[in-house]
Amino acid sequence: MQLKGACIFGQSGGPTSVINSSACGVFTAALESGCITRVLGAAHGIKGVLGDRLYDIGREELSELNYLKNTPSSVLGSCRYKLADWKKDDTDYKRILEIFKKYDVRYFFYNGGNDSMDTCQKISDYMQHVDYECRVMGVPKTIDNDLYGTDHCPGYGSAAKYIATSCAEIYQDARVYDTGAVTIIECMGRNAGWLTAAASLPSIIGCGPDLIYMPEVDFDVEKFIADVKAVYERANNCIAVISEGIHDKNNIFIAEYASKIASDAFGHKQMGGAAAYLASEISAKLKCKTRAIEFSLLQRCGAHCASKCDIDEAFELGKKAVEAAVGGMNGKMTAVRRLKGNEYKTEIVYVDLKDVANAEHKFPVEWIEGTSISDAFRDYALPLIAGDNEYPRENGLPRFARLKKILAE
Amino acid sequence: MQLKGACIFGQSGGPTSVINSSACGVFTAALESGCITRVLGAAHGIKGVLGDRLYDIGREELSELNYLKNTPSSVLGSCRYKLADWKKDDTDYKRILEIFKKYDVRYFFYNGGNDSMDTCQKISDYMQHVDYECRVMGVPKTIDNDLYGTDHCPGYGSAAKYIATSCAEIYQDARVYDTGAVTIIECMGRNAGWLTAAASLPSIIGCGPDLIYMPEVDFDVEKFIADVKAVYERANNCIAVISEGIHDKNNIFIAEYASKIASDAFGHKQMGGAAAYLASEISAKLKCKTRAIEFSLLQRCGAHCASKCDIDEAFELGKKAVEAAVGGMNGKMTAVRRLKGNEYKTEIVYVDLKDVANAEHKFPVEWIEGTSISDAFRDYALPLIAGDNEYPRENGLPRFARLKKILAE
Repeated sequence: MQLKGACIFGQSGGPTSVINSSACGVFTAALESGCITRVLGAAHGIKGVLGDRLYDIGREELSELNYLKNTPSSVLGSCRYKLADWKKDDTDYKRILEIFKKYDVRYFFYNGGNDSMDTCQKISDYMQHVDYECRVMGVPKTIDNDLYGTDHCPGYGSAAKYIATSCAEIYQDARVYDTGAVTIIECMGRNAGWLTAAASLPSIIGCGPDLIYMPEVDFDVEKFIADVKAVYERANNCIAVISEGIHDKNNIFIAEYASKIASDAFGHKQMGGAAAYLASEISAKLKCKTRAIEFSLLQRCGAHCASKCDIDEAFELGKKAVEAAVGGMNGKMTAVRRLKGNEYKTEIVYVDLKDVANAEHKFPVEWIEGTSISDAFRDYALPLIAGDNEYPRENGLPRFARLKKILAE
Repeated sequence: MQLKGACIFGQSGGPTSVINSSACGVFTAALESGCITRVLGAAHGIKGVLGDRLYDIGREELSELNYLKNTPSSVLGSCRYKLADWKKDDTDYKRILEIFKKYDVRYFFYNGGNDSMDTCQKISDYMQHVDYECRVMGVPKTIDNDLYGTDHCPGYGSAAKYIATSCAEIYQDARVYDTGAVTIIECMGRNAGWLTAAASLPSIIGCGPDLIYMPEVDFDVEKFIADVKAVYERANNCIAVISEGIHDKNNIFIAEYASKIASDAFGHKQMGGAAAYLASEISAKLKCKTRAIEFSLLQRCGAHCASKCDIDEAFELGKKAVEAAVGGMNGKMTAVRRLKGNEYKTEIVYVDLKDVANAEHKFPVEWIEGTSISDAFRDYALPLIAGDNEYPRENGLPRFARLKKILAE
């Protein structure tokens, strides 16, 4: 049962405010483990394994590793690299095995979303196929919250808190003049509306948006203009929140409308997303002041507004992945199960990587009520944005981890 | 010397994260004053006086008024209304006098930037001209920091902290892949580069941008592309920060280039600002991944990232305006003077409204070093973003003031 050897940890896919908190959980548990002889961090995920670019985490200061809890984005670097099916092309896998053997790697931890769990699963399979003893565990991550098998995903709570807080503040600002205005806010989440729905949360403090458009529902520009017009004429103000992934009934993204306009005539690429395009339409049709706001990268890296609940869970899911692997587990992802009851309580569970890799955690369509989001979503999401994180600061700015990133020899 | 009567307080111009903290300072001091018999808040600044829409602040809960310290934007509503020269057209002034008489107003406090201090000055002049005894005081406010007579302006520190913090976080995120990217960040401040310069502050934690373009310097798109290209080719990544007000040598805003492209051909209005336009240019010329980020309203209303120093000073400048007026002062604006020495220490001083109304606090051009900002700016600005504000929260969201806003009879 006891397996001695090195471990590799990698970060993959789009960063989040708390992916490094999971890294901290993995590093802490791995460095404390008696079985794990060496802790390596892969530069840019699996690409760092393939390219033999591995940082020696044992040479970092423990105090700096602790700062990872509040350092946004992927400290080791990330990648979007899809491994082939090893039954068809095992080139990458042979190279991974070579690296695993070189460093005597017996543990592989990978932190990411659906695609990363697919990578994880394939590596786990291959290693069993070639009879190389290695325990592979996934650690969940995605602001999109579309990862199957977990009640919610680390990264989501902080992104949701950023969006909800910012929407509440924009509500205060956007109605400050009596001259009327339409504000259109764009959230990430191309296929799933979890992030867009988070914009509804400030309605509990009276600062919710008027209209919300989810990517789960076909979008119609004319209907949108009519919706906005109705609110604007009644209230002299309108805040509409859209997903970047809203698309018409032919599955053409609204953001593409904008890029088509610009590129047809001048060869320029897209100059704004869906919000900018719709603001332009509203301005032309309703002749009112409009403003498009994209949260852009900040919603996934705005760690100054991270959720304490999210940071703690991200850490724990990383730590438990190591502990489970050391205990003999293989081919699973750590996940959160929410316990029944009014109070928010959870336990950590382990789901098969192959189940995660092939499924999606969809936003329940019954929670979409026209251009509003139901109270059921609020009950689901509020605990995830709870907790006020007092992050370390220096000179009024956040104090991020400063890693030496010494390459392993 | 002692003057009994009501006071009116109004908020004017673009909101900030801390303008309501000044309101709290004014209200607190006015409600405590023995001389001020009634405290009125004008809806939408001077427009609320002209329209006789005045809230009875004495009917608000004190505990709710305290929440104003952490409630962004202008709680009473704001306006951009320019009073005529009363020597040419005294219509508005007669109406203001009528309202002042109706409520026995003997104190008028106005919170705003240059234009608002001009309003203040004109009202003060007119009341003296018609021999109506009334003490008029300005309270400074603007995220742009271009107000004359004060070392810095309430609102600036919080906006600067938001920008600096967000830029540090974007730095972490924007270089997460090894595939290269150019990120262009746009800050407010059409004529003055104070806010844009704040983006340089995270360089002290190693997260500063590569290039900064201030509105004080003529902008050349070709040079910009060459600058970005040089950084990108060296580092495989580039973060450039621009002011919304960058303009070419003929004083044409770069943002106008974008709106011209779109509106010439299709009648659409501008679909993005200068950053979106430049990202499109970079993408076309350098064939690399680009992203434009506008901080938009959040930089002026992102109170969750407000500076404690800023909140406290905003409060104090409001409070002192009332105390000074009660003590007999008229026609002045409260201001901050920074004392000499290494430690950040200030005192509150009083400057003539007419001096403020006709001048500008310009960004020192000697602090602009090509595409960098000098250390002298850092020494100036760091104390202003200091202090971590633990704002009140509820359900993981900010707890804003809930005013009853009962109209005075």
